[in-house]
Amino acid sequence: MQHTDDDPVTGPERATLGVGMVGYAFMGAAHSQGWRVAPRFFDLPLDPRMVAVAGRTASGVREAAARLGWQDSTTDWRTLLTRDDVDLVDVCTPGNTHAEIAIAALEAGKHVLCEKPLANSVAEAEAMAAAAKRAAASGVHAMVGFTYRRVPAIALARQLVAEGRIGTVRHVRAQYLQDWIADADAPLSWRLDKAQAGSGALGDIGAHVVDLAQHLTGELITGVSGMLETFVDERPVAAASSGLHATAGTERGPVTVDDAAIFTARLSGGGLASFEATRFAWGRKNALRIEINGSLGSLAFDFEDMNVLHFYDARDDARVAGFRRIIVTEPGHPYVGAWWPAGHGLGYEHGFVHQVVDLVRALGENRAPEPTFADGLQVQRVLAAVEDSAAHSSTWTPIQTGGR
Amino acid sequence: MQHTDDDPVTGPERATLGVGMVGYAFMGAAHSQGWRVAPRFFDLPLDPRMVAVAGRTASGVREAAARLGWQDSTTDWRTLLTRDDVDLVDVCTPGNTHAEIAIAALEAGKHVLCEKPLANSVAEAEAMAAAAKRAAASGVHAMVGFTYRRVPAIALARQLVAEGRIGTVRHVRAQYLQDWIADADAPLSWRLDKAQAGSGALGDIGAHVVDLAQHLTGELITGVSGMLETFVDERPVAAASSGLHATAGTERGPVTVDDAAIFTARLSGGGLASFEATRFAWGRKNALRIEINGSLGSLAFDFEDMNVLHFYDARDDARVAGFRRIIVTEPGHPYVGAWWPAGHGLGYEHGFVHQVVDLVRALGENRAPEPTFADGLQVQRVLAAVEDSAAHSSTWTPIQTGGR
Amino acid sequence: MQHTDDDPVTGPERATLGVGMVGYAFMGAAHSQGWRVAPRFFDLPLDPRMVAVAGRTASGVREAAARLGWQDSTTDWRTLLTRDDVDLVDVCTPGNTHAEIAIAALEAGKHVLCEKPLANSVAEAEAMAAAAKRAAASGVHAMVGFTYRRVPAIALARQLVAEGRIGTVRHVRAQYLQDWIADADAPLSWRLDKAQAGSGALGDIGAHVVDLAQHLTGELITGVSGMLETFVDERPVAAASSGLHATAGTERGPVTVDDAAIFTARLSGGGLASFEATRFAWGRKNALRIEINGSLGSLAFDFEDMNVLHFYDARDDARVAGFRRIIVTEPGHPYVGAWWPAGHGLGYEHGFVHQVVDLVRALGENRAPEPTFADGLQVQRVLAAVEDSAAHSSTWTPIQTGGR
Amino acid sequence: MQHTDDDPVTGPERATLGVGMVGYAFMGAAHSQGWRVAPRFFDLPLDPRMVAVAGRTASGVREAAARLGWQDSTTDWRTLLTRDDVDLVDVCTPGNTHAEIAIAALEAGKHVLCEKPLANSVAEAEAMAAAAKRAAASGVHAMVGFTYRRVPAIALARQLVAEGRIGTVRHVRAQYLQDWIADADAPLSWRLDKAQAGSGALGDIGAHVVDLAQHLTGELITGVSGMLETFVDERPVAAASSGLHATAGTERGPVTVDDAAIFTARLSGGGLASFEATRFAWGRKNALRIEINGSLGSLAFDFEDMNVLHFYDARDDARVAGFRRIIVTEPGHPYVGAWWPAGHGLGYEHGFVHQVVDLVRALGENRAPEPTFADGLQVQRVLAAVEDSAAHSSTWTPIQTGGR
Repeated sequence: MQHTDDDPVTGPERATLGVGMVGYAFMGAAHSQGWRVAPRFFDLPLDPRMVAVAGRTASGVREAAARLGWQDSTTDWRTLLTRDDVDLVDVCTPGNTHAEIAIAALEAGKHVLCEKPLANSVAEAEAMAAAAKRAAASGVHAMVGFTYRRVPAIALARQLVAEGRIGTVRHVRAQYLQDWIADADAPLSWRLDKAQAGSGALGDIGAHVVDLAQHLTGELITGVSGMLETFVDERPVAAASSGLHATAGTERGPVTVDDAAIFTARLSGGGLASFEATRFAWGRKNALRIEINGSLGSLAFDFEDMNVLHFYDARDDARVAGFRRIIVTEPGHPYVGAWWPAGHGLGYEHGFVHQVVDLVRALGENRAPEPTFADGLQVQRVLAAVEDSAAHSSTWTPIQTGGR
Repeated sequence: MQHTDDDPVTGPERATLGVGMVGYAFMGAAHSQGWRVAPRFFDLPLDPRMVAVAGRTASGVREAAARLGWQDSTTDWRTLLTRDDVDLVDVCTPGNTHAEIAIAALEAGKHVLCEKPLANSVAEAEAMAAAAKRAAASGVHAMVGFTYRRVPAIALARQLVAEGRIGTVRHVRAQYLQDWIADADAPLSWRLDKAQAGSGALGDIGAHVVDLAQHLTGELITGVSGMLETFVDERPVAAASSGLHATAGTERGPVTVDDAAIFTARLSGGGLASFEATRFAWGRKNALRIEINGSLGSLAFDFEDMNVLHFYDARDDARVAGFRRIIVTEPGHPYVGAWWPAGHGLGYEHGFVHQVVDLVRALGENRAPEPTFADGLQVQRVLAAVEDSAAHSSTWTPIQTGGR
Repeated sequence: MQHTDDDPVTGPERATLGVGMVGYAFMGAAHSQGWRVAPRFFDLPLDPRMVAVAGRTASGVREAAARLGWQDSTTDWRTLLTRDDVDLVDVCTPGNTHAEIAIAALEAGKHVLCEKPLANSVAEAEAMAAAAKRAAASGVHAMVGFTYRRVPAIALARQLVAEGRIGTVRHVRAQYLQDWIADADAPLSWRLDKAQAGSGALGDIGAHVVDLAQHLTGELITGVSGMLETFVDERPVAAASSGLHATAGTERGPVTVDDAAIFTARLSGGGLASFEATRFAWGRKNALRIEINGSLGSLAFDFEDMNVLHFYDARDDARVAGFRRIIVTEPGHPYVGAWWPAGHGLGYEHGFVHQVVDLVRALGENRAPEPTFADGLQVQRVLAAVEDSAAHSSTWTPIQTGGR
Repeated sequence: MQHTDDDPVTGPERATLGVGMVGYAFMGAAHSQGWRVAPRFFDLPLDPRMVAVAGRTASGVREAAARLGWQDSTTDWRTLLTRDDVDLVDVCTPGNTHAEIAIAALEAGKHVLCEKPLANSVAEAEAMAAAAKRAAASGVHAMVGFTYRRVPAIALARQLVAEGRIGTVRHVRAQYLQDWIADADAPLSWRLDKAQAGSGALGDIGAHVVDLAQHLTGELITGVSGMLETFVDERPVAAASSGLHATAGTERGPVTVDDAAIFTARLSGGGLASFEATRFAWGRKNALRIEINGSLGSLAFDFEDMNVLHFYDARDDARVAGFRRIIVTEPGHPYVGAWWPAGHGLGYEHGFVHQVVDLVRALGENRAPEPTFADGLQVQRVLAAVEDSAAHSSTWTPIQTGGR
């Protein structure tokens, strides 16, 4: 990190944090917004610089650099590892490339922010967690991008659980419902290809609710019983893909991942959990929902109303007890004080801004940012156990949790 | 049935339907309201008469008869079977007595309406279904009381599915969430005693969502993988019980049923289903929720907003597509035309009124009312399979469906 | 009232309360259900008997008596006044007949329950209030039927305001939105005829929100500024009318009442209020909405979700403050203990049951039931002031409140 | 505007648009985010440069420039007018300074974006509109910042009304409810000082709903009848103000503006409208709500759920008609295609990004951006008429609309 002495806000001692990003599609755009905006609203111990973006096609990555505001671009992500002005590598590529890039970056002494799911297999995730552990010894840190933890309503929920406001957790019911391929003629994308994506709804969106269930409760999933299903096993090959939207051609190709996953689980504290991840729930656009029932109250969240947390306090007088619709935009709510007055809600991308904030603050204090690669590995084990259970008549499949 | 010639509305040819009811607690009160009110709002082919109610304690049953409006009372339900003025026996007792009463009544030539769950075991349910089949041959009919089918919003949902408005069913997610024993000091009741209740949340409320899932989709559940849990295994013995509410004493007794059940399932049409039944969801008072996602749309219902059905039509122009909040109070909606103008919603007990209407109309046309005892048996098999799976590491447990 | 000694519940000393009803359309059916059901769920000091119903056409009133469960029928309402077995006259006719019937009944020594609005003019209402005052001196009581006061959520709201839970009232915003004549081809009905109905949306539904605003706050409206509008001034004449639903013919007739009314108001405690009543709000079926903001909190209600009251307590910790969605079905909530377990909601007609309960209990204790005719007169004065203001450029029009 | 030939995206012909901003508090931060982010997600014909920010205190404005990302800062806004690299002046100061700055900027040949309300008086607004008209003749444009028009759900609502989807407008009911001074001890701020703010809730938030009512319907308000109220007329003087949040001291000072405003109105198409603006609605944080009922359907919006538009289509089959909860995040929805996949909602500040987009595109095509200063003047006239009516017994006060 290079020192800069020209910053009028935090003074001459604030160092820069050079960032190199790999990948520039949906996640690349979201991460770029995070890097761009975080320092404008939050006090950060390091000054992020959007140094360079890497991608496979020269014209594409050049265009992306200009559009997204990166100073430089490259078609070889390995060049990011040798640049002195890059302190952190931000991995926004499909899951099959995470392990290679992240491990190489960590070994090159670069901090790593890696999109979720951590990898496409437990073996890869284990290698990544091991690399992260080695790197941490020399002050090089790794973080996996479960950004929904940074939605203020989710962060508030975590606080309330941690403070004991809902008591012992008895139930988690978590769903992540989408409908973008509910139409059987929606085209193939890399997300429907097992080689690139690892799995389908399970790893793409199920991973988020698995992480949230563990994060919010502060417990681990100790076993699962699951089912997977692919409703539409052949789809039109995308004639052309531009950015987030693709157009269907006449050729058809196989869908090699799950369209939907449902599973039950046990939490380490004894509670029951049920999970569902699907891309076939017509009308549910991005319905990440999680409800937790404890011995003293309940919490409920739905990303379709993302600035709101519902809280039932069983200690309220029964006559006036009811789920409280907390609009999580008060100055005292997590992350919110840096933004707007009460009632002026945030959007999807703010999670990425907050992710940068938490990451940079951890780096500035030389502590491990969370969620760690070990956390990501634990999620990966849950996903693998679901697949295993689904392949064996839904039989109960314990999760090895020692390695966390 | 006795003919009456003094009815100024439907004329001299309308016969009476003498009803004898067994049990007079929560369900007895609800059924009484059904018998009392149905003929006031609906044209019925038979004129129900609330002839007699049976119960175990003389003073209790006499008080109940007066309060609920039954002409006579008895401490021996068997006397109902020998009365000429009783044409139908309405069974509102705990599940462990259903088989004995219902079979005896059918064999005595009385129609039977039996509360759900049909029985406390598959064996009992099979005997009851067999008895119902035998009785039907001589025009004596049996029906099981899954009244939620008669909520107008549910009935509308059934129509829409049957008309193909949501296409092929891909997902059912059904929950029945309550909180009445979420407090660990809530007292024991017969509903927490396996000998009387058969099971806990599974049979009491899980039975409803199992029935609805099958009824709404027109499909059967072909297998399940489940978990059961008893969070609080000892509770205060109720010092005194009066009507629906009990008071806790100092003695404690064992809870012998499940507090919660979660399970995944497969539908005969290939769809995935997930179920949850719990009495430990603080803040959810009677949240019977069911959502169905099909290839052409979705439906969602929550009993906490019981006059509303949410419908997403995937064929709507995407720009103006969204879940429609249908207030199911239009004259053209099921059951509604007999009641009030649009927007003047119904309540819980109206389901019992509609149950009487459907039952009496079927009897008037000498056809089998639905749901039949065979339907109730199928639900019982699903519940048993859940218990079986839960006892065997959640292993996939197929349901025998031939007997329906 | 005749004494009866055969009641096994409350013993020989409970007297009967003979009821005669005038009118048997929408309101007649609702009131009948109230008389029928109230004694089955509530302990009442008097035993209501549905003695006779009066109507204009012999066949119609005879059919109604049989259907609604009245022992006798008559085409001359005056005969009710001379019957010894009639203790109370229940007036369910259009507003233009209220004064004549109610005053005659009171003078004949019969208690009176009169549908709202009390009358079609302030003069009539004044005469009625005067008659009620005279009758009260000899223990004969009168009540006006603002049944929405008896929705449990509304009754709970009243309790909370009275207990000071929301502090000083600053705002009331009340709307009653319907859409049943939003279609310009919806047929004429007596409700669109000024001679019979007195006014349109203003008196029919606006009266309810005026009453609720005053009842809930415990304050009076001291002045208004208003506008009235008739959007569709000619409609098809109903070819035939049967019960609640009419069919349009080809002939057209004039609409002589307002389709919509909006007005602002001042409360006696200094708060501001805004009101709207319309039959032209497409999609709003019976959206009676009222929100009150006080110095310590807020309350909000919408009849389209009638079992729910929203309560914001400003004294809650800001971090977990939010509108509480109180499901008003707990045993401790008003009226609810007599019905079903928590979460099993009530419907529209239960307000009429509760009205009977409150009325009969007041009569049993020989005290004036509320709302009184004086309360009804005060509402009438507000409605008249709105019409007056609307006719004079919305100029502020004070309400004379001394007579209450 | 200076030409730049180094932009790899749009090529060498894209000119820059130098921006100078006056004021850097709440609105300044929001506008900065708009200028910063717009070019990263939208194709713009001009490349905005954040040249300089002006403020009263040297240290404050310097810190703001660094934090918000402006290249330069100044304590004299007039210097912005003489800089060649400033093409547009963005006015984010309190209302009492708008006229002076905006008129001077326009006369200096700078485009102007001015926050709402346009001015603190009709006279000022008229002068500004006149200046804008003169400037437009030489291709210099002015726009007023009613950013809520740019919320995608609002923009979609405008499209649907314009396409005739709800027919003739019969009702508008618009509310802007906040609670930030509902606590009587909340401190004074410039927004409570008539000299600076012009008015209170009326001009601050009422202006938004007045603009939206006219914008969404495409009609003008032709007259009003109103009331204003100041519930708390003395408040603690803020001891210190930092950014958006202030701390109360012991001294008290007068509140010289309205706390709340309610008024009724008539639209040019004949419809009725009712408005409310208040800062005293506990629990309503930023509840900008607007509902429009037309002859063919209805639309409803609440900023507390800002990514959603509710649409009732009266032409839907009555059996499945209901308000559609449109999640306005589809690619075909206004502004949305540039952002994230469906279901990934936007936040408050995105309105400011879209404002920049619309403004820059209009400038790029040398056409007047909307809303114009004439639109702002029309809103001002409505606000003035409300004040006038409130001062004269709520008497109907027509709005002069010729000058628009």
